[in-house]
Amino acid sequence: MVGISIIFFILSILLSATAEASQCSAIGLPLVRKINELPQDNYGREGLSHITVAGSLMHGMKEVEVWLQTFSPGSHTPIHRHSCEEVFVVLKGSGTLYLASSSHEKHPGKPQEYPIVSNSTFHIPVNDVHQVWNTNENEDLQMLVIISRPPVKVFIYEDWHMPHTASKLKFPYYWDEQCLQTPPKDEL
Amino acid sequence: MVGISIIFFILSILLSATAEASQCSAIGLPLVRKINELPQDNYGREGLSHITVAGSLMHGMKEVEVWLQTFSPGSHTPIHRHSCEEVFVVLKGSGTLYLASSSHEKHPGKPQEYPIVSNSTFHIPVNDVHQVWNTNENEDLQMLVIISRPPVKVFIYEDWHMPHTASKLKFPYYWDEQCLQTPPKDEL
Repeated sequence: MVGISIIFFILSILLSATAEASQCSAIGLPLVRKINELPQDNYGREGLSHITVAGSLMHGMKEVEVWLQTFSPGSHTPIHRHSCEEVFVVLKGSGTLYLASSSHEKHPGKPQEYPIVSNSTFHIPVNDVHQVWNTNENEDLQMLVIISRPPVKVFIYEDWHMPHTASKLKFPYYWDEQCLQTPPKDEL
Repeated sequence: MVGISIIFFILSILLSATAEASQCSAIGLPLVRKINELPQDNYGREGLSHITVAGSLMHGMKEVEVWLQTFSPGSHTPIHRHSCEEVFVVLKGSGTLYLASSSHEKHPGKPQEYPIVSNSTFHIPVNDVHQVWNTNENEDLQMLVIISRPPVKVFIYEDWHMPHTASKLKFPYYWDEQCLQTPPKDEL
């Protein structure tokens, strides 16, 4: 009995390792994938549900990456910037975009506020500091997010008055950590 | 009275010119745009409804472009290829993806068929010849389409046995024609 238990234990480790590896490779994945069957997680961020719909590390994309993100009421992105284009398509709910366009100043400064609603779209100019909040107390905010130059390299600010030079690089980003342990320095 | 008519005539020409120009520039557009208020057209293709959600020529995107496309039952894309990445997110309906991966042969050859359904995603490898059909007789097929390297340069095939060398460049593509009359030769 002990022998059988050990075999099952080893098998379960092997199976879980295979499952984890398959999230970091397109090998074996079907060409057409059902989005609700893709890995979904909050990646340690309260109120977030993130799905990489088409990703650099997971699916071999080189030029674009697509996420499906749902923010519960009150949850939000960090204040951040990245040197890539980003397009949002709001599928459900509503919220607020905070955007500081003062990239020539030493710090982002007070951002402009833009209401965002279901069936709207907006894009963030490269390197502009921004934050998206679900400011609707009654409904989830669901968005498709499209970025160029994946995997994303994000600089995070603690507040809007932190100098650009003090912002902290988070790379790999939350959902890329599992598949990219060591940042390739020449790409930063 | 004739003088007033002439003034109205000149004004109406000026106004219509301004309206047309505004579809080809982000100047004056709000940052957050309602998708159902964006220009929607079939651009001469029966059964198609196309909206450029975030575009190179219309909104100044340089690295990604996003379309919302609806195909009525029986309508489809041409058989075509392009040297950019393309991601589809199926929002409504169902259909069939035809994909020929034999880019090393002289012609695409018989494509593989993949059923596509609501809430599924797929991407087309760079330069693979493909076609998307709404093969569902009862429902529209609605998809978000994301491409890299905009504006798109499309090579069209009359059938799957046409040699790659005989495929015809369509540039600017249907929805880019209005804003890009003269192809910049160095970008082709």
